[in-house]
Amino acid sequence: MKLVVAVVQDKDAGRLIEELVERGYRATKLASTGGFLKEGNTTLLVGAEDAQVDEVVAIIKRVCRPREQVVTPLGPIGGAVDTYVPYPVEVIVGGATIFVLQVERFEHV
Amino acid sequence: MKLVVAVVQDKDAGRLIEELVERGYRATKLASTGGFLKEGNTTLLVGAEDAQVDEVVAIIKRVCRPREQVVTPLGPIGGAVDTYVPYPVEVIVGGATIFVLQVERFEHV
Amino acid sequence: MKLVVAVVQDKDAGRLIEELVERGYRATKLASTGGFLKEGNTTLLVGAEDAQVDEVVAIIKRVCRPREQVVTPLGPIGGAVDTYVPYPVEVIVGGATIFVLQVERFEHV
Ligand code: NI
Ligand code: NI
Ligand code: NI
Repeated sequence: MKLVVAVVQDKDAGRLIEELVERGYRATKLASTGGFLKEGNTTLLVGAEDAQVDEVVAIIKRVCRPREQVVTPLGPIGGAVDTYVPYPVEVIVGGATIFVLQVERFEHV
Repeated sequence: MKLVVAVVQDKDAGRLIEELVERGYRATKLASTGGFLKEGNTTLLVGAEDAQVDEVVAIIKRVCRPREQVVTPLGPIGGAVDTYVPYPVEVIVGGATIFVLQVERFEHV
Repeated sequence: MKLVVAVVQDKDAGRLIEELVERGYRATKLASTGGFLKEGNTTLLVGAEDAQVDEVVAIIKRVCRPREQVVTPLGPIGGAVDTYVPYPVEVIVGGATIFVLQVERFEHV
Protein backbone atom coordinates (compact mmCIF):
# COMPACT_ATOMS: atom_id res chain seq x y z
CA MET A 1 0.00 0.00 0.00
CA LYS A 2 1.21 3.49 -0.81
CA LEU A 3 0.12 6.96 0.24
CA VAL A 4 0.38 9.44 -2.61
CA VAL A 5 0.74 13.05 -1.46
CA ALA A 6 0.11 15.44 -4.34
CA VAL A 7 0.34 19.23 -4.25
CA VAL A 8 -1.63 20.66 -7.18
CA GLN A 9 -3.18 23.95 -8.19
CA ASP A 10 -6.62 24.71 -6.77
CA LYS A 11 -7.98 25.08 -10.26
CA ASP A 12 -6.99 21.48 -11.12
CA ALA A 13 -8.09 19.89 -7.84
CA GLY A 14 -11.78 19.46 -8.65
CA ARG A 15 -11.25 17.69 -11.95
CA LEU A 16 -8.42 15.60 -10.51
CA ILE A 17 -10.63 14.30 -7.68
CA GLU A 18 -13.39 13.52 -10.20
CA GLU A 19 -11.03 11.52 -12.40
CA LEU A 20 -9.55 9.65 -9.43
CA VAL A 21 -13.01 8.78 -8.07
CA GLU A 22 -14.14 7.62 -11.53
CA ARG A 23 -11.23 5.17 -11.54
CA GLY A 24 -12.13 3.93 -8.06
CA TYR A 25 -9.63 5.88 -5.95
CA ARG A 26 -10.47 7.93 -2.91
CA ALA A 27 -8.79 11.24 -2.36
CA THR A 28 -8.78 13.40 0.76
CA LYS A 29 -8.36 17.10 0.12
CA LEU A 30 -6.33 19.06 2.65
CA ALA A 31 -6.62 22.82 2.81
CA SER A 32 -3.21 24.22 1.97
CA THR A 33 -1.63 27.47 0.90
CA GLY A 34 1.49 28.73 -0.80
CA GLY A 35 4.50 26.63 -1.29
CA PHE A 36 5.44 24.20 -3.99
CA LEU A 37 3.31 26.01 -6.52
CA LYS A 38 3.04 29.75 -6.63
CA GLU A 39 -0.75 30.03 -6.92
CA GLY A 40 -3.35 28.73 -4.49
CA ASN A 41 -2.83 25.03 -4.11
CA THR A 42 -4.42 21.93 -2.70
CA THR A 43 -2.77 18.91 -1.10
CA LEU A 44 -4.41 15.56 -1.86
CA LEU A 45 -3.87 12.27 -0.04
CA VAL A 46 -4.60 9.23 -2.19
CA GLY A 47 -4.28 5.65 -0.94
CA ALA A 48 -3.24 3.19 -3.63
CA GLU A 49 -2.21 -0.44 -3.89
CA ASP A 50 1.38 -0.87 -5.09
CA ALA A 51 0.18 -1.91 -8.55
CA GLN A 52 -2.04 1.16 -8.83
CA VAL A 53 0.59 3.82 -8.16
CA ASP A 54 1.60 4.16 -11.81
CA GLU A 55 -2.01 4.84 -12.75
CA VAL A 56 -2.56 7.36 -9.95
CA VAL A 57 0.63 9.22 -10.88
CA ALA A 58 -0.37 9.16 -14.57
CA ILE A 59 -3.82 10.60 -13.81
CA ILE A 60 -2.29 13.40 -11.73
CA LYS A 61 0.29 14.23 -14.42
CA ARG A 62 -2.35 14.22 -17.16
CA VAL A 63 -4.91 16.38 -15.37
CA CYS A 64 -2.36 18.78 -13.89
CA ARG A 65 0.09 19.00 -16.77
CA PRO A 66 1.51 22.51 -17.14
CA ARG A 67 -0.14 24.26 -20.08
CA GLU A 68 -0.39 27.73 -21.51
CA GLN A 69 -3.47 29.72 -20.73
CA VAL A 70 -4.32 33.00 -22.35
CA VAL A 71 -5.41 35.62 -19.86
CA THR A 72 -6.17 39.29 -20.32
CA PRO A 73 -4.74 41.09 -17.32
CA LEU A 74 -6.68 43.88 -15.67
CA GLY A 75 -5.24 47.38 -15.93
CA PRO A 76 -2.68 48.53 -13.38
CA ILE A 77 -4.43 49.22 -10.09
CA GLY A 78 -4.63 52.97 -9.61
CA GLY A 79 -2.64 53.38 -12.81
CA ALA A 80 -3.19 55.57 -15.83
CA VAL A 81 -6.23 53.68 -17.07
CA ASP A 82 -6.76 55.97 -20.05
CA THR A 83 -3.43 55.03 -21.60
CA TYR A 84 -3.55 51.35 -20.61
CA VAL A 85 -4.35 48.97 -23.47
CA PRO A 86 -5.07 45.46 -22.14
CA TYR A 87 -3.83 42.66 -24.36
CA PRO A 88 -3.96 38.93 -23.79
CA VAL A 89 -0.85 37.20 -22.48
CA GLU A 90 0.07 33.56 -22.12
CA VAL A 91 0.77 32.18 -18.65
CA ILE A 92 1.67 28.67 -17.58
CA VAL A 93 -0.91 27.02 -15.31
CA GLY A 94 -0.99 23.56 -13.77
CA GLY A 95 1.89 21.56 -12.43
CA ALA A 96 2.05 19.03 -9.63
CA THR A 97 4.52 17.86 -7.00
CA ILE A 98 3.99 14.20 -6.11
CA PHE A 99 5.46 12.27 -3.18
CA VAL A 100 4.81 8.52 -2.99
CA LEU A 101 5.23 7.11 0.51
CA GLN A 102 5.44 3.48 1.57
CA VAL A 103 2.59 2.57 3.95
CA GLU A 104 3.78 0.17 6.60
CA ARG A 105 0.32 -0.73 7.79
CA PHE A 106 -3.10 0.07 6.39
CA GLU A 107 -6.39 -0.28 8.21
CA HIS A 108 -9.86 0.44 6.99
CA VAL A 109 -12.94 0.13 9.18
CA MET B 1 8.81 6.18 15.47
CA LYS B 2 5.71 6.08 13.30
CA LEU B 3 3.42 8.73 11.90
CA VAL B 4 -0.20 7.61 11.93
CA VAL B 5 -2.35 9.40 9.34
CA ALA B 6 -6.03 8.82 10.05
CA VAL B 7 -8.98 10.07 8.02
CA VAL B 8 -12.11 10.03 10.18
CA GLN B 9 -15.54 11.61 10.20
CA ASP B 10 -15.78 15.12 11.60
CA LYS B 11 -18.31 13.93 14.16
CA ASP B 12 -15.80 11.44 15.60
CA ALA B 13 -12.76 13.71 15.55
CA GLY B 14 -13.39 15.55 18.82
CA ARG B 15 -13.85 12.42 20.92
CA LEU B 16 -10.93 10.70 19.18
CA ILE B 17 -8.55 13.54 20.00
CA GLU B 18 -9.76 13.51 23.61
CA GLU B 19 -9.13 9.77 23.98
CA LEU B 20 -5.71 10.03 22.35
CA VAL B 21 -4.69 12.92 24.60
CA GLU B 22 -5.94 11.05 27.68
CA ARG B 23 -3.59 8.20 26.77
CA GLY B 24 -0.68 10.61 26.29
CA TYR B 25 -0.66 10.96 22.51
CA ARG B 26 -0.63 14.20 20.60
CA ALA B 27 -2.74 14.61 17.53
CA THR B 28 -2.63 17.39 14.95
CA LYS B 29 -5.91 18.02 13.17
CA LEU B 30 -5.71 18.97 9.51
CA ALA B 31 -8.68 20.60 7.82
CA SER B 32 -9.82 18.25 5.09
CA THR B 33 -12.84 17.65 2.91
CA GLY B 34 -14.45 14.87 0.92
CA GLY B 35 -12.63 11.77 -0.05
CA PHE B 36 -12.13 8.53 1.77
CA LEU B 37 -15.35 9.00 3.69
CA LYS B 38 -18.45 10.46 2.12
CA GLU B 39 -19.32 12.93 4.86
CA GLY B 40 -17.22 15.80 6.15
CA ASN B 41 -13.97 14.37 7.41
CA THR B 42 -10.89 15.25 9.38
CA THR B 43 -7.32 14.09 8.87
CA LEU B 44 -5.31 13.50 12.04
CA LEU B 45 -1.55 13.15 12.35
CA VAL B 46 -0.46 11.18 15.41
CA GLY B 47 3.16 10.51 16.30
CA ALA B 48 3.69 7.17 18.06
CA GLU B 49 6.58 5.02 19.20
CA ASP B 50 6.72 1.66 17.40
CA ALA B 51 5.35 -0.13 20.46
CA GLN B 52 2.43 2.29 20.72
CA VAL B 53 1.06 1.90 17.20
CA ASP B 54 -1.21 -1.01 18.12
CA GLU B 55 -2.81 1.05 20.85
CA VAL B 56 -3.25 4.13 18.66
CA VAL B 57 -4.85 2.04 15.91
CA ALA B 58 -7.09 0.31 18.46
CA ILE B 59 -8.27 3.65 19.89
CA ILE B 60 -9.08 4.96 16.41
CA LYS B 61 -10.96 1.79 15.47
CA ARG B 62 -12.93 1.79 18.71
CA VAL B 63 -13.95 5.45 18.66
CA CYS B 64 -14.65 5.54 14.92
CA ARG B 65 -16.18 2.10 14.45
CA PRO B 66 -19.01 2.15 11.93
CA ARG B 67 -22.36 2.01 13.71
CA GLU B 68 -26.00 2.53 12.93
CA GLN B 69 -27.54 5.83 13.80
CA VAL B 70 -31.24 6.58 13.62
CA VAL B 71 -31.99 9.85 11.88
CA THR B 72 -35.28 11.42 10.88
CA PRO B 73 -34.75 13.00 7.47
CA LEU B 74 -36.28 16.38 6.70
CA GLY B 75 -39.01 16.52 4.08
CA PRO B 76 -38.09 16.82 0.40
CA ILE B 77 -36.93 20.36 -0.33
CA GLY B 78 -39.66 22.16 -2.23
CA GLY B 79 -41.65 18.91 -2.26
CA ALA B 80 -45.22 18.16 -1.38
CA VAL B 81 -44.82 18.78 2.33
CA ASP B 82 -48.46 18.11 3.14
CA THR B 83 -48.26 14.52 1.93
CA TYR B 84 -44.73 13.86 3.31
CA VAL B 85 -44.62 11.74 6.46
CA PRO B 86 -41.12 11.77 7.98
CA TYR B 87 -40.07 8.49 9.58
CA PRO B 88 -36.74 7.57 11.18
CA VAL B 89 -34.20 5.65 9.13
CA GLU B 90 -30.96 3.95 10.08
CA VAL B 91 -27.72 5.16 8.52
CA ILE B 92 -24.16 3.97 9.04
CA VAL B 93 -21.86 6.58 10.57
CA GLY B 94 -18.22 6.37 11.55
CA GLY B 95 -15.41 4.57 9.79
CA ALA B 96 -11.73 5.36 9.51
CA THR B 97 -8.93 4.98 7.00
CA ILE B 98 -5.56 4.60 8.72
CA PHE B 99 -2.10 4.82 7.15
CA VAL B 100 0.92 4.03 9.35
CA LEU B 101 4.15 5.50 7.99
CA GLN B 102 7.70 4.75 9.09
CA VAL B 103 9.42 7.87 10.41
CA GLU B 104 13.06 7.92 9.41
CA ARG B 105 14.00 10.72 11.76
CA PHE B 106 12.08 12.41 14.54
CA GLU B 107 12.98 15.68 16.19
CA HIS B 108 11.22 17.49 18.94
CA VAL B 109 12.31 20.88 20.24
CA MET C 1 14.17 12.37 -1.51
CA LYS C 2 12.54 13.04 1.84
CA LEU C 3 9.29 14.63 2.92
CA VAL C 4 9.70 16.68 6.07
CA VAL C 5 6.47 17.12 8.03
CA ALA C 6 6.84 19.86 10.62
CA VAL C 7 4.25 20.98 13.15
CA VAL C 8 5.11 24.48 14.36
CA GLN C 9 3.42 27.38 16.06
CA ASP C 10 1.39 29.69 13.84
CA LYS C 11 3.49 32.62 15.01
CA ASP C 12 6.67 30.96 13.69
CA ALA C 13 5.24 29.70 10.40
CA GLY C 14 5.61 32.87 8.36
CA ARG C 15 9.27 33.42 9.17
CA LEU C 16 10.03 29.72 8.76
CA ILE C 17 8.57 29.65 5.25
CA GLU C 18 10.55 32.79 4.38
CA GLU C 19 13.82 31.25 5.56
CA LEU C 20 13.14 27.98 3.74
CA VAL C 21 12.28 29.79 0.50
CA GLU C 22 15.42 31.95 0.80
CA ARG C 23 17.47 28.75 0.93
CA GLY C 24 15.69 27.34 -2.12
CA TYR C 25 13.19 25.01 -0.44
CA ARG C 26 9.50 24.92 -1.11
CA ALA C 27 7.07 24.50 1.73
CA THR C 28 3.36 23.76 1.57
CA LYS C 29 1.36 25.06 4.52
CA LEU C 30 -1.52 22.91 5.73
CA ALA C 31 -4.21 24.42 7.91
CA SER C 32 -4.09 22.59 11.23
CA THR C 33 -5.32 23.03 14.77
CA GLY C 34 -4.51 21.79 18.23
CA GLY C 35 -2.31 18.86 18.85
CA PHE C 36 1.39 18.53 19.21
CA LEU C 37 1.72 22.08 20.36
CA LYS C 38 -0.79 23.69 22.67
CA GLU C 39 -1.29 26.93 20.78
CA GLY C 40 -2.53 27.38 17.23
CA ASN C 41 -0.23 25.49 14.94
CA THR C 42 0.66 24.99 11.33
CA THR C 43 1.77 21.84 9.57
CA LEU C 44 4.38 22.31 6.84
CA LEU C 45 5.35 19.84 4.13
CA VAL C 46 8.87 20.37 2.81
CA GLY C 47 10.43 18.25 0.08
CA ALA C 48 14.19 17.84 0.43
CA GLU C 49 16.97 15.86 -1.17
CA ASP C 50 18.61 13.41 1.25
CA ALA C 51 21.66 15.67 1.59
CA GLN C 52 19.47 18.67 2.40
CA VAL C 53 17.55 17.20 5.32
CA ASP C 54 20.08 18.29 7.92
CA GLU C 55 19.82 21.87 6.72
CA VAL C 56 16.02 21.85 6.64
CA VAL C 57 15.84 20.42 10.16
CA ALA C 58 18.42 22.96 11.36
CA ILE C 59 16.43 25.87 9.89
CA ILE C 60 13.23 24.64 11.56
CA LYS C 61 14.95 24.18 14.92
CA ARG C 62 16.59 27.59 14.74
CA VAL C 63 13.48 29.55 13.73
CA CYS C 64 11.12 27.67 16.04
CA ARG C 65 13.37 27.16 19.04
CA PRO C 66 11.46 27.47 22.31
CA ARG C 67 12.17 30.82 23.94
CA GLU C 68 10.79 32.97 26.69
CA GLN C 69 8.44 35.75 25.78
CA VAL C 70 7.24 38.37 28.17
CA VAL C 71 3.51 38.94 27.97
CA THR C 72 1.19 41.07 30.06
CA PRO C 73 -2.00 39.09 30.56
CA LEU C 74 -5.35 40.80 30.34
CA GLY C 75 -7.39 41.01 33.53
CA PRO C 76 -9.68 38.13 34.46
CA ILE C 77 -12.75 38.17 32.21
CA GLY C 78 -15.69 39.40 34.24
CA GLY C 79 -13.46 39.52 37.29
CA ALA C 80 -12.86 42.23 39.86
CA VAL C 81 -11.06 44.58 37.49
CA ASP C 82 -10.58 47.32 40.07
CA THR C 83 -8.39 45.13 42.26
CA TYR C 84 -6.56 43.41 39.36
CA VAL C 85 -3.01 44.61 38.81
CA PRO C 86 -1.63 43.26 35.50
CA TYR C 87 2.07 42.40 35.56
CA PRO C 88 4.23 40.91 32.84
CA VAL C 89 4.92 37.17 32.95
CA GLU C 90 7.29 34.99 30.99
CA VAL C 91 5.87 32.23 28.82
CA ILE C 92 7.62 29.73 26.57
CA VAL C 93 6.74 30.09 22.89
CA GLY C 94 8.01 28.19 19.87
CA GLY C 95 8.78 24.53 19.58
CA ALA C 96 8.49 22.13 16.66
CA THR C 97 7.72 18.48 16.06
CA ILE C 98 9.50 17.17 12.96
CA PHE C 99 8.88 13.90 11.14
CA VAL C 100 11.21 13.00 8.25
CA LEU C 101 9.67 10.46 5.86
CA GLN C 102 11.40 8.48 3.14
CA VAL C 103 9.92 9.29 -0.29
CA GLU C 104 9.80 6.19 -2.45
CA ARG C 105 9.06 8.07 -5.63
CA PHE C 106 9.08 11.75 -6.45
CA GLU C 107 7.55 13.38 -9.49
CA HIS C 108 7.47 17.00 -10.46
CA VAL C 109 5.67 18.28 -13.53
NI1 NI D 1 -14.55 1.56 2.82
NI1 NI E 1 7.33 18.24 23.85
NI1 NI F 1 9.09 23.18 -10.46
